[in-house]
Amino acid sequence: MATIEKISEQCSFGGVQGFYRHASTACNGPMRFSVYQPPQAKLGKTPVVYYLSGLTCTEENFTIKGGAQRIASDLGLIVVAPDTSPRNTGIPGEADDWQFGAGAGFYLDATEAPWSKFFNMYTYCSAELPALIAEHFPIDARRQSIFGHSMGGHGALTIALKHSDRYRSVSAFAPIAAPMQVRWGETAFPRFLGNDRETWKQYDATELVQRQRFPGTILIDQGDADQFLNDTLRPDIFADACKKVGQPLSLRLQPGYDHSYYFISTFMEDHLRHHAAALRL
Amino acid sequence: MATIEKISEQCSFGGVQGFYRHASTACNGPMRFSVYQPPQAKLGKTPVVYYLSGLTCTEENFTIKGGAQRIASDLGLIVVAPDTSPRNTGIPGEADDWQFGAGAGFYLDATEAPWSKFFNMYTYCSAELPALIAEHFPIDARRQSIFGHSMGGHGALTIALKHSDRYRSVSAFAPIAAPMQVRWGETAFPRFLGNDRETWKQYDATELVQRQRFPGTILIDQGDADQFLNDTLRPDIFADACKKVGQPLSLRLQPGYDHSYYFISTFMEDHLRHHAAALRL
Repeated sequence: MATIEKISEQCSFGGVQGFYRHASTACNGPMRFSVYQPPQAKLGKTPVVYYLSGLTCTEENFTIKGGAQRIASDLGLIVVAPDTSPRNTGIPGEADDWQFGAGAGFYLDATEAPWSKFFNMYTYCSAELPALIAEHFPIDARRQSIFGHSMGGHGALTIALKHSDRYRSVSAFAPIAAPMQVRWGETAFPRFLGNDRETWKQYDATELVQRQRFPGTILIDQGDADQFLNDTLRPDIFADACKKVGQPLSLRLQPGYDHSYYFISTFMEDHLRHHAAALRL
Repeated sequence: MATIEKISEQCSFGGVQGFYRHASTACNGPMRFSVYQPPQAKLGKTPVVYYLSGLTCTEENFTIKGGAQRIASDLGLIVVAPDTSPRNTGIPGEADDWQFGAGAGFYLDATEAPWSKFFNMYTYCSAELPALIAEHFPIDARRQSIFGHSMGGHGALTIALKHSDRYRSVSAFAPIAAPMQVRWGETAFPRFLGNDRETWKQYDATELVQRQRFPGTILIDQGDADQFLNDTLRPDIFADACKKVGQPLSLRLQPGYDHSYYFISTFMEDHLRHHAAALRL
């Protein structure tokens, strides 16, 4: 049984907000994550929702700013939020660029040296972490959902589309929805994956949805005052792909909202209720 | 008319979360504060609740961690959160001690040099800031309430007890409830106020409530796992004083909760609803 180290546990809305550390195989070093356990988790197995964060974030941003605990307590959901990348790997310059490397793992498995030794966030988030959570927390593994923000919205969409048998629902706040067609993907994918664009497609939600639809409506909220909307997020490209293949999508443009946690926290309840409905709570 | 400078404004729960800066007369330099304006503020004058933060905090901690915006949006409350002290005054060592000086102004008017030139948070919070807010935001000045956490709970209680004609209600999370009788007061008061303990009494809620009751029930939430409870908070001393003079007090000991914003955010809704009831919303 893989071990985890408790960093802290604090009461929150009748449940427990914890931070933990463990030795990751996929990322070849220590990784951190947060887990909120609602009061219902004391009584039996509870559905779980994974939240993947955006560029520059750690496991803490969502946990302190997202306002998820109140709703998770009400609905009886365990909520897990991992860090966004390995850190302190020793790779020179790994933290020099906020759009690549530390805090910017893009939820993929790197194939290019030196990143491939550590930056395997796809395997980490889709396999290693769920197994670890199932070992240490009272989750009902048949009832899992996933969501995220920005780079983490990209991560949630791609992981859900590739594991639609496992996740009952998926949603995103301002996701990078077509990474191969925007600056962030064009910058990060070659360095992590090499120059063969065919290999990039497995990490592009717009490509994936055309191969395999998700069995359920995908929920996306997007602020129309988001500084990244037209340049690098492009939910319109993803929406076109969904329309083409008949993927149900609820894309909501929210007037006045930006890319911050003030936006995310405003619509957190809608997202967790979307997942709770799919998890039949 | 005193001017304010907008640092940022962002949409949040249908309203606007702003951060502002201005030149303070009381504190003889720049001060910062945050204001949440609910959607109702677009339609007319709105009641206002002031929140005073604890040691080490700025105006940002409450604003990003407290979860107040959702409830304020629902109830139609403007919520104002000032920084906890002047900063960068040039006083040598002002930021060396987290329990005194920068981030630790104790909501009093210092009389001792060099602090007296800048550290006048009592006048700032009870007079200058309310006047500034009334000038620049659509508040209904007849409907004001105040609350706070820890050192800011002490500030809220003392300011409300001294201005019970102005504040319709007061509440506190884990306040320093009898500062003259604990380490924090014994350390900070002589340096700010000199050695005459008589002058300290105007900033001690336990002393003040025995001179002048507050017209309404004071609400206090206190976690029983709070590391500062028995050493420096001592709501029991304040409760005894309230009992002695017939001051209505609802002191709720919350099992398992600590001193953090996980505690505060859990009970934020109860506090804002306490104020909304007094403000007749």
